Amino acid sequence: MEKQIKHAIQDQYPNDVAYCYGCGRLNDDGHHFRTGWEGDQTVTYFKPEAEHTAIPGFVYGGLIASLIDCHGTGSASLALHRKNGHEPLDDVTPPRFVTASLEVKYLKPTPIEATLKAVGTIEEIHPKKFKVIIEVFADDVQCASGEVIAAVMPEGFGK
Amino acid sequence: MEKQIKHAIQDQYPNDVAYCYGCGRLNDDGHHFRTGWEGDQTVTYFKPEAEHTAIPGFVYGGLIASLIDCHGTGSASLALHRKNGHEPLDDVTPPRFVTASLEVKYLKPTPIEATLKAVGTIEEIHPKKFKVIIEVFADDVQCASGEVIAAVMPEGFGK
Repeated sequence: MEKQIKHAIQDQYPNDVAYCYGCGRLNDDGHHFRTGWEGDQTVTYFKPEAEHTAIPGFVYGGLIASLIDCHGTGSASLALHRKNGHEPLDDVTPPRFVTASLEVKYLKPTPIEATLKAVGTIEEIHPKKFKVIIEVFADDVQCASGEVIAAVMPEGFGK
Repeated sequence: MEKQIKHAIQDQYPNDVAYCYGCGRLNDDGHHFRTGWEGDQTVTYFKPEAEHTAIPGFVYGGLIASLIDCHGTGSASLALHRKNGHEPLDDVTPPRFVTASLEVKYLKPTPIEATLKAVGTIEEIHPKKFKVIIEVFADDVQCASGEVIAAVMPEGFGK
């Protein structure tokens, strides 16, 4: 059975910011990354499709970067939501974050037939900014590491 | 008319490494990024699809990371190929690179209706490793910056 997150923070994003290609539940063509708590760390699982190839047999680096990106903003949302006293199951809208910066180190080729697991460790670096350190595993072998700086989405973002 | 690269290095990659979701000409479902010289800098153009949304109206950060990733490896390939005396039009197989690390700074929301332009500046940091500094523009406004460390693909990569 494929591993999956039961209570994902993305289930609680307001509709108007739930269209992200990576993690928006309302984007019909996207990846639907789902991020939840596992103790005081965060987890996202994803099974790549055949098309997400780099060199045949291995996962495309852009997909790994995308997974790290959305895992980072989702983890920051989970963290600030918890700090505010809430969990994904509560009927309370969580804060939405945007990515300020993203770093990825590709440690080894990532086999495409594996389910990927991103694990996040979160640090608050400012009341509206979180750093998320992310390890990406394929079948328990770490293939990439990453760091995301996520900031609370500014009011009227992009308007 | 949409801007496009005439003589892309990706046209010359050997068939068995031309399936990358980002830039492989043989991946039917991929982005088909095309990277070429513009003087001593490198350029890739890309028009995002509607599905590549972050917040409605703006481009998904994972797509920008993907563009920077493939632009980085393509630029490194162009650079080493030129150092070896060749241009993309020559009937000579260029070296294929993999991404060692990727950094992206998201400077401002990137409008989804614009054609993106990635511009690369290349520095050789080792005979088999290049650093590519990348600026991403949407309609002449810089929206992101990035850095890729690209390494010559090891013999028997992933075998």
